[in-house]
Amino acid sequence: MTAVHFWYEFASTYSYLAAMRIEAAAAGREVVWRPFLLGPIFAAQGMSDSPFNIYPVKGAYMWRDMERLCAAAALPWRRPSQFPRNGVLASRLVLALPEASQRAAFSKAVYTANFVDDLDIAQAEVLGDLLQALGLPATALMEKAQSPEIRQDLRNQTEEAGRLGIFGAPSFTVDGELFWGQDRLQQALAW
Amino acid sequence: MTAVHFWYEFASTYSYLAAMRIEAAAAGREVVWRPFLLGPIFAAQGMSDSPFNIYPVKGAYMWRDMERLCAAAALPWRRPSQFPRNGVLASRLVLALPEASQRAAFSKAVYTANFVDDLDIAQAEVLGDLLQALGLPATALMEKAQSPEIRQDLRNQTEEAGRLGIFGAPSFTVDGELFWGQDRLQQALAW
Repeated sequence: MTAVHFWYEFASTYSYLAAMRIEAAAAGREVVWRPFLLGPIFAAQGMSDSPFNIYPVKGAYMWRDMERLCAAAALPWRRPSQFPRNGVLASRLVLALPEASQRAAFSKAVYTANFVDDLDIAQAEVLGDLLQALGLPATALMEKAQSPEIRQDLRNQTEEAGRLGIFGAPSFTVDGELFWGQDRLQQALAW
Repeated sequence: MTAVHFWYEFASTYSYLAAMRIEAAAAGREVVWRPFLLGPIFAAQGMSDSPFNIYPVKGAYMWRDMERLCAAAALPWRRPSQFPRNGVLASRLVLALPEASQRAAFSKAVYTANFVDDLDIAQAEVLGDLLQALGLPATALMEKAQSPEIRQDLRNQTEEAGRLGIFGAPSFTVDGELFWGQDRLQQALAW
């Protein structure tokens, strides 16, 4: 069975829901964790902020919807005091991790920091603490994350997302077929 | 059990999916068919066209997504040669119909005309034919649909949608709780 590519942005509320549930849903099938940046994707569409901020009515719905969906999924949830938070460094750290299981574990820790503990995931200290709590070499990873190779890697990821027609997060791709939205995870897996 | 209010716009592709399936999904529970206009709602957000036209990448996804979803639901589907089509007269005709079952039947006929038969639902002749095929008094209804009362009725519907925080279609409301998107129908019914 082909792998499912999971495209996510650390600022994205609905990506939190997907990140916390994708492994159970995939039931052993390979999941490729692919962080990317929505900023350049939105900018290409002429938006300089999250659509949830640009369209406040849509934003109000999203915050209520996240409450309901997290309650239904028995996932902890706190509306962050700052939105959206900058996920660039966190995304680079994911790409600096060599193992898929480390990428998954760290990504879930970053989402929990942002959407449960209301921590500023743009801060290197916050991310360093998360790496250490997972037993990962924080100092070496932080250095690697800032290297030209990893910076370029993240740019490539975001460009690939654009080429695949991705316009929001979370998105899933299976054999070039694109599914947008956390509620499409099952459909993507069934493809 | 409280009724489910089904808010739809005749131009909306995803509303077609909801319209064709809501009665089976509701399984006898009361469904209130509430046509409204997205134009004024989008205009209030600073958009003068469908977001699927304003954001072509999102539009490309929607057309592919509709194909997949209709195939999965065994619903006929043809991408209309014109999008979005003007649903003002069709919406007024719905409001001119006295019975809920007539509103449902006519609304489904309009959706089929737009998204299966590729007919221009802005045209009075097209809508008149649909009314006649349902055994409804087309001439009298067409006259009533153009009355100041029905025109005001549709304006009121759209204003109420705005007050409820509706920003897209289809939407569902149950006891003041709002759900957006055809894939949220089950969640709305369970609320």
